[in-house]
Amino acid sequence: MKNQIFEREHQINYYECDANKQLTISMLVNVMMQVSGEQSHELGVGDEELAKKGLAWIVLQYAVDIKHIPTAHQKIKITTQALSYNKLFCYREFHVYDETGTLCVTAKSTFALLNFEKRKMVRIQEETVAPFQAPFSKKLVRTPKPEKVVEEQFTENEYRVRYLDIDTNLHVNNSKYLDWAIDTLDYDFLTTHKLTHLNIKFEKEVYYGNQINSQMSLFENEEGEIISAHRIMTGDVVNSEASMTWKKNGEESNR
Amino acid sequence: MKNQIFEREHQINYYECDANKQLTISMLVNVMMQVSGEQSHELGVGDEELAKKGLAWIVLQYAVDIKHIPTAHQKIKITTQALSYNKLFCYREFHVYDETGTLCVTAKSTFALLNFEKRKMVRIQEETVAPFQAPFSKKLVRTPKPEKVVEEQFTENEYRVRYLDIDTNLHVNNSKYLDWAIDTLDYDFLTTHKLTHLNIKFEKEVYYGNQINSQMSLFENEEGEIISAHRIMTGDVVNSEASMTWKKNGEESNR
Repeated sequence: MKNQIFEREHQINYYECDANKQLTISMLVNVMMQVSGEQSHELGVGDEELAKKGLAWIVLQYAVDIKHIPTAHQKIKITTQALSYNKLFCYREFHVYDETGTLCVTAKSTFALLNFEKRKMVRIQEETVAPFQAPFSKKLVRTPKPEKVVEEQFTENEYRVRYLDIDTNLHVNNSKYLDWAIDTLDYDFLTTHKLTHLNIKFEKEVYYGNQINSQMSLFENEEGEIISAHRIMTGDVVNSEASMTWKKNGEESNR
Repeated sequence: MKNQIFEREHQINYYECDANKQLTISMLVNVMMQVSGEQSHELGVGDEELAKKGLAWIVLQYAVDIKHIPTAHQKIKITTQALSYNKLFCYREFHVYDETGTLCVTAKSTFALLNFEKRKMVRIQEETVAPFQAPFSKKLVRTPKPEKVVEEQFTENEYRVRYLDIDTNLHVNNSKYLDWAIDTLDYDFLTTHKLTHLNIKFEKEVYYGNQINSQMSLFENEEGEIISAHRIMTGDVVNSEASMTWKKNGEESNR
């Protein structure tokens, strides 16, 4: 038995890019999620099939390492495979290759099954994950936590959730949290730095009409890396924590 | 000499859809613009070539008729062709066909050439439009104007332009105006109505950091159609006017 590897090509459209013609982090994540959704669909355990059982896949965390980010009009290749699962979590990996076939992005992610009505995680069902041919393993995979916002030393922006932020799971799509996080960084910073690492953890769903407080601290960590630490709040509730590692343009990524 | 017709297929990804799995109007427009950009590129007058001359294509207006909107995972076909041009404007048409080959969307649009540094429209150059093989015609094509917001009878929302709203023309991408417009309509309205017609006119560019006031009046016109009229303002400046025609779900589109 061998974990099924699934592969898709994707041409990067201009509307998936920023002012510098680089694929945005939100769209990179969208494309990866699209590909894992297609694998599930092809294996007969896609959104439509799960919906019949009142279930939906949700993503709980992902950690993304970016060597270089592909640009508009390039044709990239995305591969993904389920790594293992346990009682509550499924672990999945992604690789993105640029047009020359060079590995440019690696991502690890944690998924779970949501009871759609009750909005609660349910136990992973053997028949739902069997087609991916990934092993059951009791062992919890410990993904490092995002670095923390520095209390009383953060900037913040307010947002109101828009209709178009909501996805078919009837909550805010995971990529929109990234838009709120990125938007706390200013234009000069974003045009002179590149993202080399993202780690985001989703704690609580956000719904239509919610008022969002997106908080951010920018600092150097002990290794001298530039870090932005992010927290997405609704009132006193922490909905998501994330951290991003940045390099000045022109500097090499070690990832 | 025959106007060049250009054709592309596009698979609709889930992240281009709303909570109902329907392609959003912003993404529909993005896809059409992508295809016209690809035609220009293939004919040797794409963004990169124009940029060398300090020029960029900008869209001034489009009117879109929607018979039905395609949904997630469908493979659609988009055709486009330049219709004619005059001293300042280029006219272009789009057709979108759903997976069964049925025409579902028709759009007419007006483009112009922007001097990138001066941010001013320039005269259309013969060599830039010759490859499209569309005729020169002195005649201005009169596209109907969007219906007007009703003064003192509109609702409004405020937005701050985000970094990711900016495109490679270094102004807010045309599709983002649609996001601001749509967001003034409430969840119940958007989930019980479908868009059958959009007419949007872009008057003045919007830049990073601008404060946006998105105004909207909802009314029935003399033909008994449900209309939302929109105005995008920065301070006292009108940046864009738009109107949308809506049908209750279940009613046929006449478009």
